[in-house]
Formats: sequence, structure tokens, C-alpha cells
Amino acid sequence: MNKQAIYHEGDSNLCYPIDKNTITLRLRVAKEDVFDEIKVIYGNKYDYYIKQEEIAMSLKYELELFKYYEVTIKLRDVRFVYIFKLICEGKTYYFCEDGVLDNYDFSFAYFNCFQYPFINDIDVPKYVDWLENRVFYQIFVDRFACGDKAKDQSYINLKVDEIPKPTSFYGGDLRGIINKLDYLSDLGINALYLTPIFSSISNHKYDIYDYYKVDSQFGSSLDLKELIEKCHERNIKVILDAVFNHCSDRLKEFQDVLKNGSNSPYYDWFIIHGDKVDQEKVNYEIFSICNYLPKFNTSNKELRKYLIEIGKYYVREFDIDGWRLDVADEVSHRFWQEFRNAVKEIKPNCFLVAENWHNSYTFLRGDQFDSIMNYAFTKAAIDYLGLNKKNALEISYQLNSLLIRNNDICNDMMLNLLDTHDTDRFFTTCKKDFDLLLCALALQFCFKGIPGLYYGIEIPLEGGYDPDNRRPMNFSKINYDSNYYKTLKALINLRTTNKALAKGDINILAEDDVLYIKRKYLNKCVTLCINNSNKDYRKIFNKILISNKLENNLLKKKGFVIYEEV
Amino acid sequence: MNKQAIYHEGDSNLCYPIDKNTITLRLRVAKEDVFDEIKVIYGNKYDYYIKQEEIAMSLKYELELFKYYEVTIKLRDVRFVYIFKLICEGKTYYFCEDGVLDNYDFSFAYFNCFQYPFINDIDVPKYVDWLENRVFYQIFVDRFACGDKAKDQSYINLKVDEIPKPTSFYGGDLRGIINKLDYLSDLGINALYLTPIFSSISNHKYDIYDYYKVDSQFGSSLDLKELIEKCHERNIKVILDAVFNHCSDRLKEFQDVLKNGSNSPYYDWFIIHGDKVDQEKVNYEIFSICNYLPKFNTSNKELRKYLIEIGKYYVREFDIDGWRLDVADEVSHRFWQEFRNAVKEIKPNCFLVAENWHNSYTFLRGDQFDSIMNYAFTKAAIDYLGLNKKNALEISYQLNSLLIRNNDICNDMMLNLLDTHDTDRFFTTCKKDFDLLLCALALQFCFKGIPGLYYGIEIPLEGGYDPDNRRPMNFSKINYDSNYYKTLKALINLRTTNKALAKGDINILAEDDVLYIKRKYLNKCVTLCINNSNKDYRKIFNKILISNKLENNLLKKKGFVIYEEV
Repeated sequence: MNKQAIYHEGDSNLCYPIDKNTITLRLRVAKEDVFDEIKVIYGNKYDYYIKQEEIAMSLKYELELFKYYEVTIKLRDVRFVYIFKLICEGKTYYFCEDGVLDNYDFSFAYFNCFQYPFINDIDVPKYVDWLENRVFYQIFVDRFACGDKAKDQSYINLKVDEIPKPTSFYGGDLRGIINKLDYLSDLGINALYLTPIFSSISNHKYDIYDYYKVDSQFGSSLDLKELIEKCHERNIKVILDAVFNHCSDRLKEFQDVLKNGSNSPYYDWFIIHGDKVDQEKVNYEIFSICNYLPKFNTSNKELRKYLIEIGKYYVREFDIDGWRLDVADEVSHRFWQEFRNAVKEIKPNCFLVAENWHNSYTFLRGDQFDSIMNYAFTKAAIDYLGLNKKNALEISYQLNSLLIRNNDICNDMMLNLLDTHDTDRFFTTCKKDFDLLLCALALQFCFKGIPGLYYGIEIPLEGGYDPDNRRPMNFSKINYDSNYYKTLKALINLRTTNKALAKGDINILAEDDVLYIKRKYLNKCVTLCINNSNKDYRKIFNKILISNKLENNLLKKKGFVIYEEV
Repeated sequence: MNKQAIYHEGDSNLCYPIDKNTITLRLRVAKEDVFDEIKVIYGNKYDYYIKQEEIAMSLKYELELFKYYEVTIKLRDVRFVYIFKLICEGKTYYFCEDGVLDNYDFSFAYFNCFQYPFINDIDVPKYVDWLENRVFYQIFVDRFACGDKAKDQSYINLKVDEIPKPTSFYGGDLRGIINKLDYLSDLGINALYLTPIFSSISNHKYDIYDYYKVDSQFGSSLDLKELIEKCHERNIKVILDAVFNHCSDRLKEFQDVLKNGSNSPYYDWFIIHGDKVDQEKVNYEIFSICNYLPKFNTSNKELRKYLIEIGKYYVREFDIDGWRLDVADEVSHRFWQEFRNAVKEIKPNCFLVAENWHNSYTFLRGDQFDSIMNYAFTKAAIDYLGLNKKNALEISYQLNSLLIRNNDICNDMMLNLLDTHDTDRFFTTCKKDFDLLLCALALQFCFKGIPGLYYGIEIPLEGGYDPDNRRPMNFSKINYDSNYYKTLKALINLRTTNKALAKGDINILAEDDVLYIKRKYLNKCVTLCINNSNKDYRKIFNKILISNKLENNLLKKKGFVIYEEV
């Protein structure tokens, strides 16, 4: 047995409560080791030395080098302590906080067993209940639809079929979105994520100078109210973009600091190295390489209060359903803890989904974000279907490794993306191959979590890196009768109605270089099968729900089929 | 290279900031693998794809199966991203969030490198500044010293040399402690931890029914004020015991629930399964097996406020220097986050040290406790010197494994214990062997962290498990002229004056079955050498500070020497 491969920690992504009385444990072992059995020996901390129960774990996730066993235990007593018993090639091992041992002395368990000391309800990660069966649609507001014909149009300098530049304005606005709600509803969309809408001089509006005002290019606070009401009438949820890592240098508080330096009451709202701001030398912390985007200092209590009030304001006054949190990984944990507590007190099901491209476990334990924009999933889709760098087996390992990063409640809330305003369009990455794009969409719609579409996927829009990935939506280019559009719509329809895809257990495997994603809920099992291998794949599928390149039980290359077994 | 042994995670005990511009990284590899070099390739997230720096890691901790490389990096830019480069047997590997790879494509680093996205000052774990050079002395108040001769003595039923029963009262009180402050000062003690002092019917007072009142057996709030003032005059810090997991069933709020069931405004302060409390069936959550100790429900906001007010009250009104947090692991993370924020706002250097016998990393990231009672250290001392279950090499591995659990700021604040009111007395465990006890004390005083002595160690008191470990202090039994007492005092004196032992870097190794603990600070190195092997150990030691069984360069079995190299 490869002892060095064995890994577990209490109160972690490998040990977490899923409700007040239930805990899930995962144990990592070496891929190549064969086990007669792996069990959890558990009990109540206070009589564990004399009384233990055993429960078997089962193999759940296979990765390249490792495999993970898992078990979910209903507890009578939540003062939960445990060790693992592994039988490998006839030999028994015990794994506790002191490592892998040949024997275990329960009279010393109080010192070195693993534990989840008590399941306190307030620490249990909570599923945002309305997320089930949602499909998100991300709108880059300036590029979606122009609705308000009466507003000043003089700033508009981009036509619908032109390639945008960093300084382009197409004229999209909230009225445009309102006008397209019936279209979105018809497509099956039931959740919107809007990029920032507050006062800013740019087209993207990630440089906000007044958080309490809808930018006049986009409309008014009345338009925002109307948009949200009309969305809610159609059962469409709406989340807005909270840019709390940084602001525009035009924010009046930063302007005050520019003028008064360390004498400004807002000096400590930013991180300035020196008494005065020097915008040329950039002697202050910023976002990326942009000196006009000073970073907020969330170590300052007043600043935290200021930002949290904004967060609460739109939840309370506009009834928004959540926030997408921009550059959230560069903001302090302390801020997000306070932010979460404040907004969830107003609306417990306010969805908090953060931008963080990396393993974000320390933000996703239940005290900060609910979810992140799952760019690690994006990477897997690119590696497998976009650039054909990995085969089905390799991608099954990669996808399983993502599921291990976080608890499973969080996995169900992950916002899985193929592309956004910060990546190349997937359609461009896969060299405009409709079948590959459909396979990627099917993967996105069948993986654990919530699919997030980027506006224009219906056409689909092309685009390389920013600003090319932000081309105007061209409604006239939608081919409603195309196989592509119909398949996309069918996927949306399936994902918004099927319980197994929304909440089902997941099992990922590869067979003959074909990828299977199985989702099981109660007695139903929905399976996605993707063939991106070099040969056709023959199999008789059960009740077929959707497919693209399936003919006479032959799933061709770049083909997928979603089928159901009862 | 054993790929399965390689382990790292960002924003963890293996990646943490130590100040606003400095980060420490640790990488785990297989013990047996030999590396030509291990480097960190790092940079600023926003131009990492084109610009990277490299820095070598060095071997720091050796465990049984693993070894850890470490490096501390001063950053010019704190938007820190990185991967590891390992060269093993001439072959180069790259380790990132996607695992161990043969090649690394920096153009995709944005998706899969490791990161610590920004060092926000408020998230950096802070060292409680007064802890340097402290030695704690834990007083079980009823058993220490009787001072107030005027109080009602009728409850006292235990004499100084009797073995206590669970219902014994010796009569110790705050006045008794005040009377002994000169004694404690002379011994060198400069920090006290008192077990609970608030209204309760037991001798231990872990069953509190009035948190705002000093128990009349122990004195009054005026006595507490006087005690703390007189301690502070002598540069002695004082921490009290906060029992916030549970209370006495006599607490008036629980009494109200007993009477009114779910109609009580305090019903939700507890966790009751049913509308009414049934004390016989115990249909509510409790501590351990004690139905008279109902557990608090820290999911309730009012209850959290109530407990936090208590925490603030004694810091603000009595100027206490910290809280020892009882059964803290069974209380919610959310509570401790709020508790910490509230008391640290009043007194940033208020020391929060929790009872948690296990790996407590998730509480010790800087947002909850500063420290724990380090029972894992206790276990190591028992295994090595108390029961002779492990040799020097094995214990060096065990001690190194403890240092890896947490960040190094936290390691410097760990309260290292040989025994407490919840364990057997170490003197009893080691079968009353003075030399073994002295070796254990030397280990405790030279390991990273703060030594915590349990009252009576000066005699030393004997005692098995509770209540035997709570025998009355017998001042008449202290043998001031004994080698034991003098050595103990010398250890305290050394630990309270020596910078290397307080803040020095640590290096643990074993040689010829002899244990070395080296502590280095600037150009000074203090080394502890313990011989618990079966033979005498010959070595010429440098400038000897303290030793017990050293004769003519021969360190005998059960002997230690602390020496200095400059």
C-alpha cells in the first residue's frame, strides 16, 4: 500500500456536513492499490474509547494518480470522531491524525483521531434553493440590445456587425434587455447575470464612480426596477456585478484623496505608499495594470461598511437575487464574511458567485461565497473539446479532480462556463465547429453545477480575447430553424426541467475513449455520452433525449447523446 | 519521483502571508526522493505569462514518510501566482493546480497556476505581541490557595493532603492567588490562566449560571480587579476561562425554557428536540454526558450577542489579557469569527487560546483563535518521555508534523502543555521520574510556542485522571533547595529572557537516538539535546545553559542539556 498517497483532513473538502445530522467523508488513496475494504470507524467523542461503529466507504472518484472513496453518514450523535480502517492485500492499517498505523489504541483516540466536533447548523453550507434547474445567461449590457431610442445617442460609435475596440460603444441598455425578455424566456433562460450597470465612463463599466446610480447610458433606477419586476414575472432571476476590489479614480472618495492625500478621511480606503497619490508613479495598489482603478483597502472598517451598504441596498430596494463578485479573490476573507452575513440576513437565498479562476476552497466553506465562476471547468472543456489536448480518460480525471476541490453542496452551485467576457469565445477556440460546441454545451449542461451561457451563443458569436469577445448581439443572425439552435434550446429545456441534471449524484467515466457523465436522482439516471475519439462509437442507447451525431447506434466523432435509464 | 507524495495548496498551512509583503510556501515531497533542486517560479498574476522569477526552496521538516521544503519570499507585487519546478534524477517536473506535469504552458497559467491572490493586511495572522518570553501557569482556582479567611467556610470539605473527589471543595480563591503573586513572580511566572471563576455550584465551575458574577466561593468582582491590577504591576498577564459551548441548567435563560418550552424567548438559545425540555430523556444537546450542561445554539443571533457581550465585558471592564475558550471546537466557526472581531476591536492583543485537542487548522487561519492548548504536543511528550513508546527519531518526525499543521505565526503562539486539569499529571505518567519530567519540561520550554505549566508542577504534584489531577496545591511541600525546583526555575528564567527560545526558527533532528531541538534567532543558536536512549551520549557541548544529567561530556539516559552556540 502506498502510504504516501493516503490523505484526509477533518473539517475540509474531505469532511463536511451536508445537514444538521449528516456528514460526508472522502479518503484519498493511491490509484494502483487494491483494497479488500475501506471503512470508517466512528463514534461519539465522549465514549469512543469503548464504543465504535463501522461503515464501509465506496469508490467514487478516479483521478490520474489517485482514487477517492466516499461515504455519507447519518449521525445519531453529532459529536463526531473517526478513524479509517484500510485492508490492503490482507493487511490492516489504521489512518488517524498521527498517520497510517499498524495498530490503533482507542484509549488514546482523544488525542489523535480525526473529528468533526459538532455540526453547528450555522456552519453547514446552504444550497441556494432557487438554483435548481436554472440556466444563466450573461449579458454584457452595452453589447446586447439598444432599447431606449429617446436617450442621447451621441456616445454610440459601434455598429452591430463591427468588431469592437476598447473604446467602442454599441448602445445596449436595460430597456433593450426588457424588450428581449420574451425572447430569452422562449429560449428557456431563467436567470440573468448582467455585467456592471453603475456609473462609469467605460463600455464594460468595471470602473465605477457612483455605485448608487445606474449609468445613464444604460437607463435609470426605474428601468432597473422594471427589469427585475418583469424578470420575476417570468420566473427569471437576476444577479448584478459587484465590483468591490477596486473603483474608478473618479469615485468622489478617491478624488478627495487625490486632493488631500493623507489628510483625507478616505485616505485609508485605499492602499497608498506615501502621503500623496502619484498617478504617474502609481504609488498605490491597483487592479491589474490600470492606474485609473485604485484598489479598495478592505482592512478599513468604514470602507467595508460602505461597500456592504451597497450590497444590501440593491438586494433590499431592487430585490435582486444575487451578486456576481468581481476579482473576489483579491479581496479579503474578512470582507466577504461580513458581506455574506449582511446580505444573507436580508435575503438568505441571495446567490453569491465570485470570480476566482483557481481552487477557491477557502472562500467556499460556507462562510463567504456560495459559488464561483468555474473557470477550471472552462479549462477542462477547452482541453478536451476546444483544443483536443486531452482524451476522454484524461478529461474524466480532470473533471473528477474538480469535484474533489469542494463540498458537494458547493459543487451543485458552481457556475460552469464555456466562455465569458474575459475569455476567447469557445466557438472561436474550437475553430467554429458546431458539433464540438454542442458537445461542450452538453458537457456544461450535464456536469454538476449551473450552466452559464454567454450572450450570443445562440448565433453563435465569434471572438478572440477582449475586446473581440464582446461583439454586439445580432438578433437577425439567429437561425431559429438550424439544428444548432434547436439543439441548444433542447439542452436548455432539458436542464431546466430535469431533476437528475439539477440535483443528481454524478459519476464520470471513460470507456473506449468515450466520456460518460451519469447523473442519478432517485430511480432516474440521465447519461451524457460524448465521442471525441478518432472513431465512431457503436452502442445501443436507452431512451434518447437529445443527440447531435447519432445514426443507427453509431455515435460519430464530435458527437454526443443524452439518454435516460429508469 | 513519487508523484503521489507531492502536495501543496494555495492559501493554506502550506501557503500563508507573514506580513503585508511576505509569504511562506511549503511543499511536501516523498521522504526517499532526492532532488537536484526545487524552485518556486512566481510572478505577478497580470504579466506572469511573460515574466517569471525563480527562488530555491530548502529542506526544512523531515517526517516519517515525507519531507517539506520551504521558502519565504519578500514580494514587490502581492498579486502572487506561482508553480513549483522540481528536478529529480535529472528530470524536470512542474507542479501546478492541475497536478505534476512534464511541461508547463505559461500562456494558460491564468487557469491553473497556484495563487495567493493578494495579501490583504486584515487576513494576515497576527502575533499577540506580549506573548514573547511568557511562561503560563494554569491555576485550578479551588485547589490553589485559600486567601479569604472571612468568607463562609462551610462548603469546604477537602484538606490539603487529601485526594479530591468530584464533590470536593478545598476553598481556594482569588485572594489566595493574590497572596501568592510574589511567590509566582519569584518562580518567574509571567502569565496566569485561571479555570472558570464565575457563579457555579461545582468546584471546577465549568457549569456557569451567572457569567457576570465572580462565584462567591472565589471572591468578588473587586477581588478580580485587584488580582488583575496586581498581576499587571508585576508584569503578569491574566487570561480567564470562557465556557461558551454550554452552561449550567441553572442559567436563568435555560430555567425559563424549562418552564415555558418553545414559548420561551430563549428556546432557540439551546438545541431542543421537541417543544419541551425533558431532562430525564435528555432531548436536547449537551456537553459530554452531562444533562445539567445544555449546549448553547450559536446559530442563534441573540445568543451570540449575549456571549460576545460577556467576552467584551471582562476585557473592557477588568482589563483581562485574553480568554481560554472551553470546548471551542464544538462551537461554530461563525461564532468565533464574530467573537474574535468583537474582542480584538477593544484589545487587539487580547490572546484567544482555545481548547481543541486535534488538528485545528480551520480555526487557526487568523480569523478565529490565535492558538490552541497544544495537546498534540502533550501526546508527543507522553509518547517519547512519559511512556517511552517512541524514540528520538520517531519523535522528531512527530514534532515536525505538528509544525506543519499551522502557519508559523500560529506555531509561535501555541500553548504547549505537559498536563492540565483534563489529563493525568505528567509526573504520574512518567512514574514519578524527576529526570524524565525535567526532560519533558526542557522539551516544552524549547519547542516552538509558549510553555504552559499546571499548578503544582513545582512540587511536583501527582495525579491520575479527573479528579485526581486536581489535588490541592501544598506550598509546604515545595523543596526550594532541590535540584528539581532549581532546574525548573532555571528553565523558566531562560525561557522568559532568551530571544531564540521565544522567537527563534526551529530545526528538529535526531542523531544516535538523541533528540536535538535547535532554535536560531539572528546570530544566536540555542540547542536542546535530550538523551532518552539506552546508552550514555558523549559529546562536547558548547556554552552550557542548563542540564540535569551531564557529567564529563557524558549525557546520561533521561538527561538533557541546553547549550548555546554563537
